[in-house]
Amino acid sequence: MRILVLNPNSNPEFSAQMDKAVEPLRFGGAVRIDCISLTGTPLGIETQRDIDAVLDPVCDAIAAKEAEYDAFVVACFADTGVASAREVTSKPVLGICEGGLSAALNAGERFGVISTSNEARNAELRLIRSHALMERCAGMEPVNIPVVEMMHSNELAERMVSAGRRLAAQGAEVVVLGCAGMTRHQALLQDELGIPVLDPVVSTAAMALGAIAGRG
Amino acid sequence: MRILVLNPNSNPEFSAQMDKAVEPLRFGGAVRIDCISLTGTPLGIETQRDIDAVLDPVCDAIAAKEAEYDAFVVACFADTGVASAREVTSKPVLGICEGGLSAALNAGERFGVISTSNEARNAELRLIRSHALMERCAGMEPVNIPVVEMMHSNELAERMVSAGRRLAAQGAEVVVLGCAGMTRHQALLQDELGIPVLDPVVSTAAMALGAIAGRG
Repeated sequence: MRILVLNPNSNPEFSAQMDKAVEPLRFGGAVRIDCISLTGTPLGIETQRDIDAVLDPVCDAIAAKEAEYDAFVVACFADTGVASAREVTSKPVLGICEGGLSAALNAGERFGVISTSNEARNAELRLIRSHALMERCAGMEPVNIPVVEMMHSNELAERMVSAGRRLAAQGAEVVVLGCAGMTRHQALLQDELGIPVLDPVVSTAAMALGAIAGRG
Repeated sequence: MRILVLNPNSNPEFSAQMDKAVEPLRFGGAVRIDCISLTGTPLGIETQRDIDAVLDPVCDAIAAKEAEYDAFVVACFADTGVASAREVTSKPVLGICEGGLSAALNAGERFGVISTSNEARNAELRLIRSHALMERCAGMEPVNIPVVEMMHSNELAERMVSAGRRLAAQGAEVVVLGCAGMTRHQALLQDELGIPVLDPVVSTAAMALGAIAGRG
């Protein structure tokens, strides 16, 4: 099985972090999972204009690589271009917001999302409503750190723990990380909160394996 | 990774079929997935009384095998005992109804379910509502073949295709099989309908891999 995890931003550090996170799903080389960044796109997908700007690049990249992979994961928590990309290929295309939240449904009655910012939360709210998953959402709490600073911020861990505690207080039984830049603190957060904390890139890549297996 | 797929009915033919279906997710032996039936339970989970009757056996079996596995899949489309089993173990417990429907969310805007009977459909309706997934449900169509006859019925394939066509006409973009006894016609149905047809045992087992990978 061959899965392409497509990071719509142009920051290779994000893709490198995804590459590390999905390693357990390679099962010692039995599965090929490639994580790549786009080029010429924003360094971080922060605003609605950023989201809009990568719609075409996401579709173009999937069209160009269609023959090479069995399934595609769009690794931006805005599910940027996922609906359009499904018009480009008949192979499974999954977004990490819908995929991560779908996985979370199986890990607790209500999920919470750690958002990057108050602004991102608005776009995510629209998305969760459009996925008809709002009823399982306990809350969304931001860390308010710009996406481009996410990977190197010294305050990120502390703010994630604080946001996670607020989500748990609102009834979240599982927390979904709302940005691939948060991955490095997944284990810490899970230890601190004592509930599952999902990296949606991993959850969605696993679901892609299921989609491929089911098409035999 | 070690996953137990627990078939709450006592029919070993169901478990044998599951065993075959999940083979692609073993990745040549890198993943251990055991599919077992319970003993002393009904041959098919058909009625609400049947569902109630296997609640304790499901929990007992998971408690007895807890140390041996990293995650548990309860392979009955009634998600029988899943909520209770989560009080027995802190390891991931997934049901194939919630898991299969969650996976389906990523394969189409609206899913349809092929139910075993009109009666089963009522229990499934309550379940889908309790999972808060009704808004993505296009419809549920029964084949009206008893579960215990499912595995050997000569009419099953034809009735599944007919039910699948009714679901597609209602707007389903992906179909979920509502019984492990239907698995052997998954490929035929997918070919006939031209849309993804999910065996929820496979979808949910893949999600279990993700849950394990994400807990590293």
